[in-house]
Amino acid sequence: MGFFSKDIKNLDDLFMHGLQDLYYAENQILEALPDMIEKATNPQLRAGFEKHLSETEGQVDRLRQVFELMDADPKGEKCPAIDGILKEGKDLIGEVEDEDVMNVGLVAAAQAVEHYEITRYGTLAEWAKQLGRQDCASVLEQNLAEEKAADKKLTSMAESGINRRAA
Amino acid sequence: MGFFSKDIKNLDDLFMHGLQDLYYAENQILEALPDMIEKATNPQLRAGFEKHLSETEGQVDRLRQVFELMDADPKGEKCPAIDGILKEGKDLIGEVEDEDVMNVGLVAAAQAVEHYEITRYGTLAEWAKQLGRQDCASVLEQNLAEEKAADKKLTSMAESGINRRAA
Repeated sequence: MGFFSKDIKNLDDLFMHGLQDLYYAENQILEALPDMIEKATNPQLRAGFEKHLSETEGQVDRLRQVFELMDADPKGEKCPAIDGILKEGKDLIGEVEDEDVMNVGLVAAAQAVEHYEITRYGTLAEWAKQLGRQDCASVLEQNLAEEKAADKKLTSMAESGINRRAA
Repeated sequence: MGFFSKDIKNLDDLFMHGLQDLYYAENQILEALPDMIEKATNPQLRAGFEKHLSETEGQVDRLRQVFELMDADPKGEKCPAIDGILKEGKDLIGEVEDEDVMNVGLVAAAQAVEHYEITRYGTLAEWAKQLGRQDCASVLEQNLAEEKAADKKLTSMAESGINRRAA
């Protein structure tokens, strides 16, 4: 982004900016997940994170498809939001020793990530539609559906045994 | 949080940490909203932000109630996630000149904030229940319901005229 010019002139620019932001975010999440997998001692949670790691790889591929559909090279744009969300999760995890409490904290950290992705994919898919790019919207909606399903699974883990063991 | 000790030992500690984090977040949002109101030229969006400013004041009061129920003083804990989300919104807005594009960008920025609050209030209310503190959960769920309603309203604005004018 330019320092002295206002670089976002229309919805096309907003869309491309958002796409680059999410591409960066997904790649940061790919880097963060192995550490979360390592820290998760609850088998169900661990398996969920492992599944989400391979899902996230597929989501990065879909974002590349959208760049291609837009005739643009895949490029990330530093995204302070995902950096802050991941930092907060990391800081929290650093304060916890007990395994059960760790699992609960990991669920909360992962849900914050999912919600960020849900709002951004929802926004981007809507923008794509309004730009007449149903092709891009369809690809983005596949990622959106996966993120919503992942969040739902985390909610049901939080409502079931994971929290109660820590209480 | 301690540098050399692990300060979060149980679900009670996690809950209190999350409460302090949200208290900080709501106060940062209170500071950010007047600027968003000033930038919003769409009357419906502007009115929505104005309403949300007074709602947010009420939400801060409810968080104070929860601190009181927990016999604790209201205290904020620096929250890198909301800082990052608000910074990203501010950066984006700084790149936009056109009014219609600005309104669209503001809707997206506000939805990212709402989604962060939705995940955190959902998590905290669930933890409160599992700690046997239905009194705290009920108060938190009032804030959660308001955030969900605000997000829904923003979605319907995004799906209606606001984006199309910028396209």
